[in-house]
Amino acid sequence: MRIPDEARDLLKGDGLATVVTLDPDGTPQVTVAWVGLDGDEVVIATMPDQRKLRNLRRDPRIVVTVHATTRNTAGLTEYLVLYGRARITEGGAPELLQELAHTYIGPHVKFPPMPNPPPGFITHVKVERIGGVGPWSPETP
Amino acid sequence: MRIPDEARDLLKGDGLATVVTLDPDGTPQVTVAWVGLDGDEVVIATMPDQRKLRNLRRDPRIVVTVHATTRNTAGLTEYLVLYGRARITEGGAPELLQELAHTYIGPHVKFPPMPNPPPGFITHVKVERIGGVGPWSPETP
Repeated sequence: MRIPDEARDLLKGDGLATVVTLDPDGTPQVTVAWVGLDGDEVVIATMPDQRKLRNLRRDPRIVVTVHATTRNTAGLTEYLVLYGRARITEGGAPELLQELAHTYIGPHVKFPPMPNPPPGFITHVKVERIGGVGPWSPETP
Repeated sequence: MRIPDEARDLLKGDGLATVVTLDPDGTPQVTVAWVGLDGDEVVIATMPDQRKLRNLRRDPRIVVTVHATTRNTAGLTEYLVLYGRARITEGGAPELLQELAHTYIGPHVKFPPMPNPPPGFITHVKVERIGGVGPWSPETP
């Protein structure tokens, strides 16, 4: 599905994403990651073959959550929850990490910092449903 | 299990928690909530009988994630992931919300703002495993 503009703006910012995948027994597994956009897909780069990638090859369901930064008077921030399915491709992680590092660390950073980084993996998330609280979600959570 | 002191400090702060439960088909459902501590249990107050409560009555598995606020030079914050099981009790939500509002909104706030709030529900999380990145977790995610 199409990601609404307000959600795209949040995804293009420097808010870290909370990423949920499912362990073999169905228990949610949670890590934090940098996220970017490639058209209407959310992209995540990882260099080692992490547990979340092994989880996604078995069960592609993934949930990506990003908090907005301003808190409202009720003590909550708006937040975006993207429910989708992931597809993993090999290679391209250092290049995507370098691009995202400009947002997440700063304009002049070299990332990853090592000389010959491994090609790694890209997780591409096709969004199927949007939740959370914000202009992207008319429903109560 | 016992929650380590550094993790307790983070849980007592004003960082919003990302809460994962499981929908009937096993898909993770994600919302954001205030969290507090009651001994070694994490507590969450909700006034309406939300979807996450219905999920937890069916499958008590819950994951609570809190991000630390300071970002390191690699563009990541430390974060705490608590894997556990939830037990829901009726009543006490306005009192716990009032207590947490002092942390999440400010010292003089009256919360919930309405005159006769419903008794609501408390979700008590017994922690079984700790993940994330920080002094509470020696492993790589």
